[in-house]
Amino acid sequence: MDWIYILNLAGVFVFAISGTLTAIDSDFDVVGAIIIGFITALGGGTLRDILIGETPVWWMQDALSLYAIVAAVLCSYLFKKSILKLRKGMFIFDTIGLGLFTILGLQKTLELGLSPLIAVIMGVVSAVFGGVIRDVLSNIVPLIFRTEIYASACVAGALVFLVLDGLRLPLELSMVVSMIVVFLIRYFAVRRKWALKF
Amino acid sequence: MDWIYILNLAGVFVFAISGTLTAIDSDFDVVGAIIIGFITALGGGTLRDILIGETPVWWMQDALSLYAIVAAVLCSYLFKKSILKLRKGMFIFDTIGLGLFTILGLQKTLELGLSPLIAVIMGVVSAVFGGVIRDVLSNIVPLIFRTEIYASACVAGALVFLVLDGLRLPLELSMVVSMIVVFLIRYFAVRRKWALKF
Amino acid sequence: MDWIYILNLAGVFVFAISGTLTAIDSDFDVVGAIIIGFITALGGGTLRDILIGETPVWWMQDALSLYAIVAAVLCSYLFKKSILKLRKGMFIFDTIGLGLFTILGLQKTLELGLSPLIAVIMGVVSAVFGGVIRDVLSNIVPLIFRTEIYASACVAGALVFLVLDGLRLPLELSMVVSMIVVFLIRYFAVRRKWALKF
Repeated sequence: MDWIYILNLAGVFVFAISGTLTAIDSDFDVVGAIIIGFITALGGGTLRDILIGETPVWWMQDALSLYAIVAAVLCSYLFKKSILKLRKGMFIFDTIGLGLFTILGLQKTLELGLSPLIAVIMGVVSAVFGGVIRDVLSNIVPLIFRTEIYASACVAGALVFLVLDGLRLPLELSMVVSMIVVFLIRYFAVRRKWALKF
Repeated sequence: MDWIYILNLAGVFVFAISGTLTAIDSDFDVVGAIIIGFITALGGGTLRDILIGETPVWWMQDALSLYAIVAAVLCSYLFKKSILKLRKGMFIFDTIGLGLFTILGLQKTLELGLSPLIAVIMGVVSAVFGGVIRDVLSNIVPLIFRTEIYASACVAGALVFLVLDGLRLPLELSMVVSMIVVFLIRYFAVRRKWALKF
Repeated sequence: MDWIYILNLAGVFVFAISGTLTAIDSDFDVVGAIIIGFITALGGGTLRDILIGETPVWWMQDALSLYAIVAAVLCSYLFKKSILKLRKGMFIFDTIGLGLFTILGLQKTLELGLSPLIAVIMGVVSAVFGGVIRDVLSNIVPLIFRTEIYASACVAGALVFLVLDGLRLPLELSMVVSMIVVFLIRYFAVRRKWALKF
């Protein structure tokens, strides 16, 4: 499953950039920016691991992910202007990370023998709580609570994965399709300003 | 101990309603409201389980509690106006939940062989941290830090339980009496605007 | 290693005073102040223990630390004015606590067989996250993200410890020297208003 590890690393990298940019915006110093970069990239998976009892948490055995974050923080400072110009590209990577973290979190939970309902919840937790903790530490109401479809895109993708996996499709196909579902819902939600308010 | 499970379910339900109403007030979208509902209802017990090392955390084996939360979120949206009219009823159920979560959290900790002091602390954590996390995520200073007696009602009830249990009263009697202590202290604190400031 | 335990207890005491004073400043009631005192003193080590999977967390077996916190809260209320006059002394103790918590957290992580990189991160987490959680609960952007060198002093001290320990110096000497490094960097950073912004 090498391609999954590489995608995951890319997700960590992009989430770390998004965290660092938020920290720079909030006028944090370098160390603060590094901490926020780490928390944005690792927070969701860390909370998932703590809740399901998989400790030491995942990144303690995966130094490469930590170096990817340090690289992301460096890039954020060095290429700040270019990255902001590339916002569209950033958004696309961020959305890829969202789908990826959802499905990987879901699978890890299923493999522990927990129920599909819990697995869907843990998929969403993996994908969104890095950003939630980032926003809480920056003293901002977490964006996911009041903007476009975000967590709900994760839920939809997670449910699609469960259906496809239940139909006994090849695992990698189910993963890719459901990640694409997360991506497309989130992408069009932002493009067309969808919202879920009653 | 069926009646305890049913009371616990009722506590989860009421805490989820209180969380959802806060989220609606804060202008969150539906998914945000669901997330806040879950966190308010489950957050305290979850933090307790993480601290004492009982993972996967309790609700991962208790789907009924999760369905109760989904039902509570639905009710909050459908019957929002009626619920707000019933604020007094809500407050009473919320206060029942407070007593219940305190004593159940205390007992679970004692059963693991931890000290009574730790058990009291874990009782308070179980009862109040769902609300604390709800407030932090809504970018509000947690109410328990600056309003009426709340955590202190839990401490008082927990101490009463330890005394009664030490006197070898029947377990269920000790539980009910100490839950009533929490309820009464909190109830009169709100009614008569008691406060603990020096 | 009795002297380490005593220093640790002193660190807990001083951190609890700093938390309580923040809570009093934020107009919290007594129970809120106690809770913030506990969280400031125990939060960093607690998060470290959760992340590395050492649960029940450390203070559940160490009642003396809990009594030290209660004593610190009492002192904060009784001697509030004198403590504020002694701010300079407070700052020095707080900075001692910072160095101590860093090196103790680092060592505990190394002893579990985790990598030096993770140990440095866990040292910083142990030292700074009590204050981070205190600030989040008080609805303040955590100070460490935008003021003087704080977490970076911990990182520097942690690296010095790893070098000295790698050179096979006596453990206690490595600990004392690296604690002094944390102390001096933090001390001069505040005195001379160093900052790390680009």
